[in-house]
Amino acid sequence: MKPIAVRNIERASEETIVKLGQLGVATVHESQGRDGLMQPYLRPVFPGRRIAGSAITVLTQPGDNWMIHVAIELCQPGDILLVACTTENTDGMFGDLLATSAKARGVRGLVTDTGVRDVADLLNMDFPVWSRSISSKGTVKNTLGCVNIPVVVAGQYINPGDIIVADDDGVAVVQRHRADEVLQSGQKREKNEEDKRQKLADGVLGLDIYDMRGRLASAGLEYVDTLDELPGRS
Amino acid sequence: MKPIAVRNIERASEETIVKLGQLGVATVHESQGRDGLMQPYLRPVFPGRRIAGSAITVLTQPGDNWMIHVAIELCQPGDILLVACTTENTDGMFGDLLATSAKARGVRGLVTDTGVRDVADLLNMDFPVWSRSISSKGTVKNTLGCVNIPVVVAGQYINPGDIIVADDDGVAVVQRHRADEVLQSGQKREKNEEDKRQKLADGVLGLDIYDMRGRLASAGLEYVDTLDELPGRS
Amino acid sequence: MKPIAVRNIERASEETIVKLGQLGVATVHESQGRDGLMQPYLRPVFPGRRIAGSAITVLTQPGDNWMIHVAIELCQPGDILLVACTTENTDGMFGDLLATSAKARGVRGLVTDTGVRDVADLLNMDFPVWSRSISSKGTVKNTLGCVNIPVVVAGQYINPGDIIVADDDGVAVVQRHRADEVLQSGQKREKNEEDKRQKLADGVLGLDIYDMRGRLASAGLEYVDTLDELPGRS
Amino acid sequence: MKPIAVRNIERASEETIVKLGQLGVATVHESQGRDGLMQPYLRPVFPGRRIAGSAITVLTQPGDNWMIHVAIELCQPGDILLVACTTENTDGMFGDLLATSAKARGVRGLVTDTGVRDVADLLNMDFPVWSRSISSKGTVKNTLGCVNIPVVVAGQYINPGDIIVADDDGVAVVQRHRADEVLQSGQKREKNEEDKRQKLADGVLGLDIYDMRGRLASAGLEYVDTLDELPGRS
Amino acid sequence: MKPIAVRNIERASEETIVKLGQLGVATVHESQGRDGLMQPYLRPVFPGRRIAGSAITVLTQPGDNWMIHVAIELCQPGDILLVACTTENTDGMFGDLLATSAKARGVRGLVTDTGVRDVADLLNMDFPVWSRSISSKGTVKNTLGCVNIPVVVAGQYINPGDIIVADDDGVAVVQRHRADEVLQSGQKREKNEEDKRQKLADGVLGLDIYDMRGRLASAGLEYVDTLDELPGRS
Amino acid sequence: MKPIAVRNIERASEETIVKLGQLGVATVHESQGRDGLMQPYLRPVFPGRRIAGSAITVLTQPGDNWMIHVAIELCQPGDILLVACTTENTDGMFGDLLATSAKARGVRGLVTDTGVRDVADLLNMDFPVWSRSISSKGTVKNTLGCVNIPVVVAGQYINPGDIIVADDDGVAVVQRHRADEVLQSGQKREKNEEDKRQKLADGVLGLDIYDMRGRLASAGLEYVDTLDELPGRS
Repeated sequence: MKPIAVRNIERASEETIVKLGQLGVATVHESQGRDGLMQPYLRPVFPGRRIAGSAITVLTQPGDNWMIHVAIELCQPGDILLVACTTENTDGMFGDLLATSAKARGVRGLVTDTGVRDVADLLNMDFPVWSRSISSKGTVKNTLGCVNIPVVVAGQYINPGDIIVADDDGVAVVQRHRADEVLQSGQKREKNEEDKRQKLADGVLGLDIYDMRGRLASAGLEYVDTLDELPGRS
Repeated sequence: MKPIAVRNIERASEETIVKLGQLGVATVHESQGRDGLMQPYLRPVFPGRRIAGSAITVLTQPGDNWMIHVAIELCQPGDILLVACTTENTDGMFGDLLATSAKARGVRGLVTDTGVRDVADLLNMDFPVWSRSISSKGTVKNTLGCVNIPVVVAGQYINPGDIIVADDDGVAVVQRHRADEVLQSGQKREKNEEDKRQKLADGVLGLDIYDMRGRLASAGLEYVDTLDELPGRS
Repeated sequence: MKPIAVRNIERASEETIVKLGQLGVATVHESQGRDGLMQPYLRPVFPGRRIAGSAITVLTQPGDNWMIHVAIELCQPGDILLVACTTENTDGMFGDLLATSAKARGVRGLVTDTGVRDVADLLNMDFPVWSRSISSKGTVKNTLGCVNIPVVVAGQYINPGDIIVADDDGVAVVQRHRADEVLQSGQKREKNEEDKRQKLADGVLGLDIYDMRGRLASAGLEYVDTLDELPGRS
Repeated sequence: MKPIAVRNIERASEETIVKLGQLGVATVHESQGRDGLMQPYLRPVFPGRRIAGSAITVLTQPGDNWMIHVAIELCQPGDILLVACTTENTDGMFGDLLATSAKARGVRGLVTDTGVRDVADLLNMDFPVWSRSISSKGTVKNTLGCVNIPVVVAGQYINPGDIIVADDDGVAVVQRHRADEVLQSGQKREKNEEDKRQKLADGVLGLDIYDMRGRLASAGLEYVDTLDELPGRS
Repeated sequence: MKPIAVRNIERASEETIVKLGQLGVATVHESQGRDGLMQPYLRPVFPGRRIAGSAITVLTQPGDNWMIHVAIELCQPGDILLVACTTENTDGMFGDLLATSAKARGVRGLVTDTGVRDVADLLNMDFPVWSRSISSKGTVKNTLGCVNIPVVVAGQYINPGDIIVADDDGVAVVQRHRADEVLQSGQKREKNEEDKRQKLADGVLGLDIYDMRGRLASAGLEYVDTLDELPGRS
Repeated sequence: MKPIAVRNIERASEETIVKLGQLGVATVHESQGRDGLMQPYLRPVFPGRRIAGSAITVLTQPGDNWMIHVAIELCQPGDILLVACTTENTDGMFGDLLATSAKARGVRGLVTDTGVRDVADLLNMDFPVWSRSISSKGTVKNTLGCVNIPVVVAGQYINPGDIIVADDDGVAVVQRHRADEVLQSGQKREKNEEDKRQKLADGVLGLDIYDMRGRLASAGLEYVDTLDELPGRS
């Protein structure tokens, strides 16, 4: 890994990004074939926010947040800082000062595979963060990493400029060149779900809406009236 | 494990269930001899709810929520869905559509040894959930499991129809045939605690309320005036 | 470990303690040279509280909260109960009764390397707690430990009378004899940060405020215009 | 949980137990419909052993090994000590002295949801152990538990007298009343596998032995010649 | 994720692969700029083996090993099976039958982000495996995944045909197009280390070999003669 | 934390150290009142070694092994390197080169709260190591820490010159000024155990050797002949 910062990246259109955000994490993940979901240890620092934006990727070293400073200069309004680390690290790489700076540049939020601190301030500023941990552990500025190279965060491979969607369910990534296709698929899925939701609310069973009874029977599911009919435990 | 769904289970009386719910998890656990508590990794998806109901047990396969659809048909108003899995799995087996369906059938909530998603919707619908994790990971409907057989969830063995109590402290199970005995014991305990609570609020020490001083002394506790009297660290 | 309870400990001045509390965990940790921070698995049971006080240290045995009863008698108004355990244990050693008793004696809160229960009551009473876990698991009163000896909690060594600061970012300890020095250093740091915060809010970059560009270059950071200029993945 | 020790339990026949042991953990688990496998955090303290025997169940309290002493008196030659705990605990509840005692009574080994110590001695004595952890943490004898009641260990519900099989793959339980059925099914499975193993060793593909190609195609698997034919990442 | 199997992949030359294997994981990781190391939870099932080969990548579903059967047909002598999963899963997806089949096709070993079983047989067959866990948990063949697409395993992004190196230190990946460059850098590093190793064995200090004393001093390291000279703890 | 290296420390006598080592970790831990045991996540990199020596303490930064180089110069024959880190970190801070250097200076082994690499070489050199993890992750030499100050490792507070004992059961620390007292207590305990071991091997029960029957009865243990006598599950 040579220490490099890439100045310019391509981004999806703001319209596409905003609409992907409206779909939310679960729908976006489903709409691209159940792909792109980061592992569930990434959790929102405070609940009730949903954001979408273009990934400015940062590769940091453990206990060192130097490259986040480098990254902020390369952010544009609408971007999301996406911080990877070369090893598992929970240190508090980001706090109220960096959030103030990021907000001043129009950054929509932070997704980090490390820790964050000053979380009461982040809530007050309404700067949403998804992180591996909350920790005040201070960091240094001694070892270089990279900005805007492909990184792996929480099990997903992300290119700079990919679209990040984050909400209370977690974080998903959409590859930039698939953004429009995923959006269309997601919007179709959403309409489809609205119809199902109404039926389910009316008490129609999923077994019937999805026509599962035949497939369950041919897979071998047996119904018995009471547990007493069963030999043994199960 | 043969794939089986049991249609009919016995339930405790609604009155007993409601009153067990009023006791809450900690009291219920204590009142049955410190038994029946599920491991603390099961956490509420949103705080501030307390529910009690009869367990409809579901045994799922990892990454597969097929049997939850089967289970919902077998639920009655006042039931709680209790989802086990044949292995550790964090996938999002339950979301807003299943919650809509469960709610339409009068289900009071979900306790699951897997993940859930659409958690903002669950909060909006006020459908309380206790889960191992929050994850959008989509699931399939390809492999059978069971409904209403005995299962192990978070370290507890649960029969269908056992009473589930869940609140901010976690989740406990009460065996159906012990429900009334546990309720009586719990109500006695609660009265007893109310008295102690008042004394403690007035500044009386637990040492005196529980008459511990003699037992502490005979067990060998030594009081010293200052740390300097101690040789070495401890 | 001989079972011992130390009656009298020295405390820092209330003024110093209160002011350290106003600094908060992150600043306190930084101001003593990035020392004194407990591991981030200690989390607040409910958010939005910041406390500071003198540590009454308790060494418990797994599944046994006997020594907490002993400790409460030795607390003074303004103290914080700091509970260690001789092994990793998540049991619910502290609940609404002990909180009632602690509150009656003026204790400001609890930091425990174990579990707690009755968390809805703790919120209602506004008795703040930082813990390893939330668990209703009941405990016994059978095996002695110690009160007011040095203990290790979440990776930090704490003497009775050391100052504990806890907020949404976690928990930090300040050695009693360093309290004034840390306070001065922290207040200086805070002023310094206020100035930076304003500049950052105005859009000035950290790169410029901290004068990092030269050091980045001499460390070898290379800027390229686009990712295409890079050979290979990274 | 009332503290109780049950003197007499029923056991499967030694012949059945020995033959289940020869099948090993993986085959036993498969032969009862993929049931009965304990979670994989239970690991052998030293490799290369395979044992089977009747479970003497012990329910301990955290940090307290008193009930193991009670249990040893109730063991017969051919039994396996199976230790549960009322909470997660890694303490070293069992070491060379208890192993000496257990061996003198013909116990074949130990499976424990806690820690063990003196592991070099256990190897020298050839007393096989599967445990949650290795820890020298000493334990007390202060709080009662139970012997020979049903327990949950590592996610499985076990009755006293059930058959425990343990080897390098982990630990499985067979319900006593299903032992002969599982044995027959396992022996059939093993013969069947021998045949397949030979074919696979000769280079015949599983795809062909199990006749999977049609099912893969109808499930929608597409073969492409090179990755370049794929649009996007996946 | 569309279910796809890619028949043909490009591989590095056998000579390069063999020589990368001789360097071992630590040297390969260092030689590509401290890149390409998989997370340390991947551990060898038995110690003392070092392998290198071309990655045949497999993306599986939790609890389902169907795609491994598909992958084996696409393996060539010298390949290594590299198994990813769409979620965290410890099930025993690979055992002695699959190992027999893989060995018959010249596969050198397995690296899997899941569990394996029959580990005594794997040792007997000398088929080396690095895995997330050891578990007998049986798997089904019901849900499709992919073969020979890019995957993420243990935090690394791997293309089919990339070179996998695995030994007692863990697992590293080398991108195919960088293989020769990494090999040269690694061989240079190894020579360099041989010289240092000799000096260190002769008692020369790293401080002097690497000429660190000046840099330590200018970074601010202070030497004191005894701990008593220090004010406070540190 | 000011970056400091302390040149001279006091050590216990070699005779005491050697004899403490002969007692082993479990006995040493018991003999000082069940104190001084490090958490069980510290595991030997290869089995079958037992060492004892004086602690040279090192406080490192995550991903940075600079201070280990500083520490080696301050080691004397018979010392053990004890490495702490300011945060949880699994990186491979120590490998064959540092082991060669340490061995040349007579160091007996390493205990580290981080990762190590080149583990096959460590085994070949017979340089025993206890660590948090095995990882090849390379480290830098950019940020200062300390040598020979008090540190916390795996839950224990250790002063430079304290005695470290490590074997297959884990790692224990004995405070230097308590070394002789712990040794005497441990030797007495060992003699005592030898006698018990013989009785247990002859089939005498622990219940009788320790005279437990009366205390079990008065604590309330009830014996029943069969499980059928029990009402309910437990």
